[in-house]
Amino acid sequence: MSHNTFGHLFRVTTWGESHGPALGCVVDGCPPGIALTAEMIQAFLDKRRPGSGKFVTQRQEPDAVRILSGVFEDERTNGQRTTGTPISLMIENTDQRSKDYSEIAQAFRPGHADYAYFAKYGVRDYRGGGRSSARETAARVAAGAVARLVIPGVTVRAALTQIGPHAINRDNWDWDQVGENPYWSPDAAVVPVWEEHLEKIRKAGSSTGAVVEVEAIGVPAGWGAPLYGKLDAELAAALMSINAAKGVEIGEGFASAALTGEDNADAMRRGPDGQPMFLSNHAGGILGGISTGQPVVARVAFKPTSSILIPRQTLNEAGEEIDLRTKGRHDPCVGIRGVPVVEAMTACVLADAFLRHRAQTGG
Amino acid sequence: MSHNTFGHLFRVTTWGESHGPALGCVVDGCPPGIALTAEMIQAFLDKRRPGSGKFVTQRQEPDAVRILSGVFEDERTNGQRTTGTPISLMIENTDQRSKDYSEIAQAFRPGHADYAYFAKYGVRDYRGGGRSSARETAARVAAGAVARLVIPGVTVRAALTQIGPHAINRDNWDWDQVGENPYWSPDAAVVPVWEEHLEKIRKAGSSTGAVVEVEAIGVPAGWGAPLYGKLDAELAAALMSINAAKGVEIGEGFASAALTGEDNADAMRRGPDGQPMFLSNHAGGILGGISTGQPVVARVAFKPTSSILIPRQTLNEAGEEIDLRTKGRHDPCVGIRGVPVVEAMTACVLADAFLRHRAQTGG
Amino acid sequence: MSHNTFGHLFRVTTWGESHGPALGCVVDGCPPGIALTAEMIQAFLDKRRPGSGKFVTQRQEPDAVRILSGVFEDERTNGQRTTGTPISLMIENTDQRSKDYSEIAQAFRPGHADYAYFAKYGVRDYRGGGRSSARETAARVAAGAVARLVIPGVTVRAALTQIGPHAINRDNWDWDQVGENPYWSPDAAVVPVWEEHLEKIRKAGSSTGAVVEVEAIGVPAGWGAPLYGKLDAELAAALMSINAAKGVEIGEGFASAALTGEDNADAMRRGPDGQPMFLSNHAGGILGGISTGQPVVARVAFKPTSSILIPRQTLNEAGEEIDLRTKGRHDPCVGIRGVPVVEAMTACVLADAFLRHRAQTGG
Amino acid sequence: MSHNTFGHLFRVTTWGESHGPALGCVVDGCPPGIALTAEMIQAFLDKRRPGSGKFVTQRQEPDAVRILSGVFEDERTNGQRTTGTPISLMIENTDQRSKDYSEIAQAFRPGHADYAYFAKYGVRDYRGGGRSSARETAARVAAGAVARLVIPGVTVRAALTQIGPHAINRDNWDWDQVGENPYWSPDAAVVPVWEEHLEKIRKAGSSTGAVVEVEAIGVPAGWGAPLYGKLDAELAAALMSINAAKGVEIGEGFASAALTGEDNADAMRRGPDGQPMFLSNHAGGILGGISTGQPVVARVAFKPTSSILIPRQTLNEAGEEIDLRTKGRHDPCVGIRGVPVVEAMTACVLADAFLRHRAQTGG
Repeated sequence: MSHNTFGHLFRVTTWGESHGPALGCVVDGCPPGIALTAEMIQAFLDKRRPGSGKFVTQRQEPDAVRILSGVFEDERTNGQRTTGTPISLMIENTDQRSKDYSEIAQAFRPGHADYAYFAKYGVRDYRGGGRSSARETAARVAAGAVARLVIPGVTVRAALTQIGPHAINRDNWDWDQVGENPYWSPDAAVVPVWEEHLEKIRKAGSSTGAVVEVEAIGVPAGWGAPLYGKLDAELAAALMSINAAKGVEIGEGFASAALTGEDNADAMRRGPDGQPMFLSNHAGGILGGISTGQPVVARVAFKPTSSILIPRQTLNEAGEEIDLRTKGRHDPCVGIRGVPVVEAMTACVLADAFLRHRAQTGG
Repeated sequence: MSHNTFGHLFRVTTWGESHGPALGCVVDGCPPGIALTAEMIQAFLDKRRPGSGKFVTQRQEPDAVRILSGVFEDERTNGQRTTGTPISLMIENTDQRSKDYSEIAQAFRPGHADYAYFAKYGVRDYRGGGRSSARETAARVAAGAVARLVIPGVTVRAALTQIGPHAINRDNWDWDQVGENPYWSPDAAVVPVWEEHLEKIRKAGSSTGAVVEVEAIGVPAGWGAPLYGKLDAELAAALMSINAAKGVEIGEGFASAALTGEDNADAMRRGPDGQPMFLSNHAGGILGGISTGQPVVARVAFKPTSSILIPRQTLNEAGEEIDLRTKGRHDPCVGIRGVPVVEAMTACVLADAFLRHRAQTGG
Repeated sequence: MSHNTFGHLFRVTTWGESHGPALGCVVDGCPPGIALTAEMIQAFLDKRRPGSGKFVTQRQEPDAVRILSGVFEDERTNGQRTTGTPISLMIENTDQRSKDYSEIAQAFRPGHADYAYFAKYGVRDYRGGGRSSARETAARVAAGAVARLVIPGVTVRAALTQIGPHAINRDNWDWDQVGENPYWSPDAAVVPVWEEHLEKIRKAGSSTGAVVEVEAIGVPAGWGAPLYGKLDAELAAALMSINAAKGVEIGEGFASAALTGEDNADAMRRGPDGQPMFLSNHAGGILGGISTGQPVVARVAFKPTSSILIPRQTLNEAGEEIDLRTKGRHDPCVGIRGVPVVEAMTACVLADAFLRHRAQTGG
Repeated sequence: MSHNTFGHLFRVTTWGESHGPALGCVVDGCPPGIALTAEMIQAFLDKRRPGSGKFVTQRQEPDAVRILSGVFEDERTNGQRTTGTPISLMIENTDQRSKDYSEIAQAFRPGHADYAYFAKYGVRDYRGGGRSSARETAARVAAGAVARLVIPGVTVRAALTQIGPHAINRDNWDWDQVGENPYWSPDAAVVPVWEEHLEKIRKAGSSTGAVVEVEAIGVPAGWGAPLYGKLDAELAAALMSINAAKGVEIGEGFASAALTGEDNADAMRRGPDGQPMFLSNHAGGILGGISTGQPVVARVAFKPTSSILIPRQTLNEAGEEIDLRTKGRHDPCVGIRGVPVVEAMTACVLADAFLRHRAQTGG
């Protein structure tokens, strides 16, 4: 991970600000010969798109992705295929309301990246958060759509497991529920609770945190490059790099601190097919930084959005003490939109791990 | 992070197995002119060294570090100084008991990296865990000692905040206590509780997890390179790459998921010195991936060691179902030794962030 | 250098094919606060643009560059400034004649990348050479324009010193001549010779090689990162990566093989200003991979274009032996257009070296 | 290539100064399961070793290499095998004569890296040239020995083709001759000419330049990663990073500038085996940055060593003008010892290209 590029062999470089003319990414290192169309990427962008529920930001943009390079089609290719050259993806910003930014132009929103960017660069594009806007995650989702095609045997899927203080009941977990409610909840029972909580938060002009859980099924044993390219270390970096992420855990995660060795270690037996089988998955599918063949499981904690309507004490660039409330559209719970982003980053990490594994071992 | 190298500009490449002739690292990119002697590194290695308490592994090695390159001294240098060329550090393995490995040579210890390494590489150095041994962390600690010298204004210090189910009482936090007990506890009151718990674990031939908290004081605002070299993303990768780490959080971390925006965002006022001052530190000193000038705070969850005396169901390389107990020395709580390692990795990440910041901004 | 990214801290990722919708690059790591407009980049693109002479390809494209991200302007910034975030540059391909590619679609042009791309990827965008087209160098020139702004004290300029067998007379060297003829010749006397040679080549449907020399003035002593990031090694990679480049030399280059130590080593004396002064520059401004403060001097050999009208023996994808002549527009001497590209790559390497030097030494 | 690491997937990090306790390298990313012993590496080090002829430096060191990590042997591995973990190689410096360095300690040898290192770092290990010593190439040769094992189907071999003004007669080229004379000459006829020239140079206390040519046979079509990881760009960087290298060319190289397109492009026909066959190899086995299946051919120009006995004008650190002659052992022709180093770097680049190719294409 280097500034605006992530990945080693499946390399994604993203660019763009919230209110610039466009944003996008360059995906480099993608294998050749993979069927890829804009529509295949668009499907994932539509899933991420704000405006699908009333508790995500009301910005209305089609987020239409264009593929500018890296694909080719003629009568012999059986549809459009990747060529092994860099894939440039662009999404134009069509909804850049030229609204009045005079207030935040000179003020640091508490809990936002405003102050840190200013301290670092001495100049900042404050419009809509500029580079630190969650809008940049559209580029991640687009890249993730490509990544999935690199590892066709792997299914990456995420769900929301907590909003504010309300966690799901894991006994109710049903992946089929995830697409049936606007919060990606795998537990139908918690949906009305979340709805009520979000309504309260929205009315108060406040925001709330959330937790997303992701799993990747079909990852074979052997992916991951110890010691510093460990699969869990790469996942941790990728997930922590998402806007508003404040924690990442793998498998049992923080709960493992309270366990004993015999309760935490996953015993092995031969499965019905004679293959190695684990009797539990406290490890979250990763041991020694290498995948074990079990589902890879991670969780990400998202903090509550800092852009809220409740006035907060802060400073402006001149160093004066002011009270600031962030007007305009905002997400009461940015974690909801984090679900497809967590999936995308996980897919990118796995595609990269696959290529690295193939490089070193041929497999 | 690329296989066995971490860092971008302050680059550390580690090498070595538990039972090979030696282990070490190459530190590349260190600024020139810094006073550096083996003794300055040794002090941190001694702190990490097992055998300082009865609840860490009984392996007795001096862990004497040698500097093989990258330093120079003559009458004009005022002691030995770094030259800007790669610093090679080596620690010989003097205590490689040539014991009987016949059992684990062909068996996969449950919860250990054995199976994953075998699945990946088809060959593995099983002696003492080989490359996946916690012994490798000696090289990290050595590198961390150099990293601290690159950022002399920054203090990095860690403490243990939980062993098994027993967390400290944060109201008792006293940094002066940390060096006063063998568990790096900042809470004197919890020490007897931990002691009893560890004794029970040890007698049972079991192991227990733990949580380490680290803080870095003196980090100026502006370090970190969004979007994928974010300071928190780099920290997450570095800390998750430590043996047995299963979770990383920054500032409020997972608890932030339950908060509201107004409770989580850190308000700002001018401090007594007229400088920007935060009224709280839920952010853990990082916003938008960039340091804010507040203390950088992170926590790492360590799982219980997988090498335990309690027999566990597993397989051997031939695929046969066996029951295995791991004989020999082992750590009942690897998290204890994790404390200096967490400090070292944090120091390395910060040294790297400093150099990257200086490159782009001159600051 | 990694696939489609070059540079370490001043990182340029290029993308695009000759006949895709657009091409461009992402410049990452650029310092903030630098005045940058599309016009400033356009000036260099216009210089590179084909069609300025009759001996460069007749493709007529405005090559209008757009800045899609990484800059910001408000009343406080004194014009548009870089923000420290990735700068995305895009040039649309407006002149993609949908001509008949049926012949080369299945044939490998001798001396061209056709066969190698096909062997590597199994699929290739043959239209106009696809990714291997010299058109990609527009993105390099755009990036180079930004690089120059990062090192404002450095002047990078190049000239053509040989076309086919006709070298310039170095005694006639006059930098002011370079812009006065369509061949970037510093020697006015050679221009009619080259003109005649090119006319002959063009009429024959043939092509010719060339040599470009670049110098960078104002590079202070100390840039370059031994041992593998040596300034000359980075330059060699950057220049050899240009289409049709087959050789790179620094300073005395290949001629140094014939010299003795006393003739080759540049003696030093104090200059009129009391500063260290070299009495010659056989080293080309680089010793031990580090700049010495003298002008950095390099030369690049360009082979003759492989796309010629003279029929040549080759194979098609089916493995059949055919004779092929490449129809359509082509460059009789691609080296001419190489001049601004060599400048651009040199500027990028120096900007990167500057940032790396500043990171490690503060200077 | 980043400071002291070269390669992307086959990564070599070297360390060590001429007069430190040791030097060495860490080879990371090597595939597992490869038979590797110290003896296999030693064979190549012995070839490089100074002292095999009277025209290479008289330093007498066994250059005994030790493998400190990354290999394992038990009854199942059929000898010692790589494990996929980093391979640490160390060569102790046994011949560090603690001679009098008082003169060069404060003086800059003309043509040497002394001044540049001092300008960059402000401190330098002047003993024997420190990090800039040709002694570091021992680590490269050791790494190259490992690289060869990664690409067992490829033969990498080099020869000296020019010493001073005396080039070989290419019509006499005979690879079998290369090992039969102390100068790696493929032309037996030139040996007495070189001998006489070197004797004259040695007596004069002077030095001479040289040219090395390398070829790699058995490289399949498809290696190389355009556009900036082109095989020729990587080779150029690797070869230019060798001490005293001032020029690199591929295939026809600088001579291609004088050719026409029809003379330079290599025509293709089907070979006797029905496979694609080139009728010439002006390209040096690389087109578009990708290998074509022909031998990869490159040449490197080495300047004459700067350490000579003839007094030269220079400065000391205090800025005073002095005349300096470099006492002690030195190479009259460093290019001779460059032969195994050029081979090693070429092998490393090819091993890296192979792994990268396998990553992206599976091949």
